Amino acid sequence: MADKALDKPYFEKVAVIGVGLIGGSLAISLREKGLCGEIVGIGRGKPNLEEAVRLGVIDDFSQDAASGVEGADFVFLSVPVGSMGSVVRAASSGLKHGAILTDGGSVKAGVIEDVLAALPEGARFVPGHPIAGTEFSGVGAAFSGLYEGKKCILTPTTDTDAEALALVRAMWEAIGATVVEMDPKRHDIVLGAVSHLPHVIAYALVNTIAGMEGEENDILGFSAGGFKDFTRIASSSPRMWSDICSMNREAVLGCIEDFERCLGAIKDSISKGDFERLDKSFEDAKRVRDTLNE
Amino acid sequence: MADKALDKPYFEKVAVIGVGLIGGSLAISLREKGLCGEIVGIGRGKPNLEEAVRLGVIDDFSQDAASGVEGADFVFLSVPVGSMGSVVRAASSGLKHGAILTDGGSVKAGVIEDVLAALPEGARFVPGHPIAGTEFSGVGAAFSGLYEGKKCILTPTTDTDAEALALVRAMWEAIGATVVEMDPKRHDIVLGAVSHLPHVIAYALVNTIAGMEGEENDILGFSAGGFKDFTRIASSSPRMWSDICSMNREAVLGCIEDFERCLGAIKDSISKGDFERLDKSFEDAKRVRDTLNE
Repeated sequence: MADKALDKPYFEKVAVIGVGLIGGSLAISLREKGLCGEIVGIGRGKPNLEEAVRLGVIDDFSQDAASGVEGADFVFLSVPVGSMGSVVRAASSGLKHGAILTDGGSVKAGVIEDVLAALPEGARFVPGHPIAGTEFSGVGAAFSGLYEGKKCILTPTTDTDAEALALVRAMWEAIGATVVEMDPKRHDIVLGAVSHLPHVIAYALVNTIAGMEGEENDILGFSAGGFKDFTRIASSSPRMWSDICSMNREAVLGCIEDFERCLGAIKDSISKGDFERLDKSFEDAKRVRDTLNE
Repeated sequence: MADKALDKPYFEKVAVIGVGLIGGSLAISLREKGLCGEIVGIGRGKPNLEEAVRLGVIDDFSQDAASGVEGADFVFLSVPVGSMGSVVRAASSGLKHGAILTDGGSVKAGVIEDVLAALPEGARFVPGHPIAGTEFSGVGAAFSGLYEGKKCILTPTTDTDAEALALVRAMWEAIGATVVEMDPKRHDIVLGAVSHLPHVIAYALVNTIAGMEGEENDILGFSAGGFKDFTRIASSSPRMWSDICSMNREAVLGCIEDFERCLGAIKDSISKGDFERLDKSFEDAKRVRDTLNE
């Protein structure tokens, strides 16, 4: 039987570093489920922090990470993956002994390396990644149900504190997410495939069409609903995605190369007029894709 | 001022060859707008034709193209692009002098060539392509609003009969579509880019991930909503898409190569760690994609 205390964890003071869609939605969920006392937001942009207070997402804010995290027993890092190390370094002197930190970053191996290098003695880091998001950003896009029914991947290492891991797991479960544990490198390959690669492809496809635009016709004007769905993710934050590609460089490059081979096989079938092989390739893909509708 | 008679054309007898989503939706729309008398469906599958009668989409059906088109003043070809030539050949002996044929095929140059080679003296062909569809198929998926507010591209050649062209244009406009005229080869490049290429990419992406599936984790299970949107078109009919790739081979290959170059540039930026260039590339794509939301 699960430990009752862990079924519904409680944090006296929560600090959210980076109050956007991901951090803001966690803050809203923690409060709604009665899992915390005070919530302090930390960030660089004052207008966004003021809006977060106005919306009731956070109680107070600080533009200084070290003073913002003072006394916090739980710190959520929701800044771009390339900035995780530096925000922990900036917060370091304010972190109390035993404080639990977790993150929402889309890359794990690089973030673990950066955060552990910056983490002060006594603070405990549990690397995590909730699989949730929209193409919108900023605290105005945050909402309470974002993590409901979603998966949250935790990627503990042998150094991860067991109690901290159990608390972070209980926290995600209490706000409706399903927790899965995974090796950090495996996480980066899996997410490289189902998330980072599709974003790279969507950006590349839109660039392809932009490069073909003639003067006589507006090519994009002839796209149908399928194209709009297909390229929706190319409306995501360019800065965030180049940051993810940078932090998950090796896995993303591997995924691009795998994809190039699959596309090359299709191109080869078309070029050689081998439409039986092309049929089979499309059928295989449809069969796999259709499992997502089940 | 437009000729009043052309504002709302009327056909005594319509023959729809291929009563699926595209042909069925046109039949429903023609009847709803009072643009025709009798509608006869022509196809190979009896159960589908019987369902079309039961649903009121067509009045009667024939499995023989030549007898089905007898007396029809308007014939709509909505069969796979690779079969357009052979169905016209099969219908040929039944076509009355002056009959107008148009099609809904996603490829134009190849279809024009095949249809003109099969068309009997006196019948008039207007090549067309309504930009509408869903990932579903069959007459059960047909509905009246499919063409409402959509673009329909007509690709007349110097041989196209002017009166037939005007009537087909008026017909599409009467059921709510906006008609655009375009050179057939240009159509094939434009649609190659915004439709055929994305389908090929979606199939290739799903194959990439299927090829990476390890035993320890179900990779697709970690995909989020963006991935589902992104790969929805990989649920489309494999046979239809390999047929389109076959008929639009040259343009599709050109589009794949353009795309490979754009993806290669992104890969190169990641590989070299040139994240300024990567940023710019993603920003350019986002700017273009965002115009679709306007």
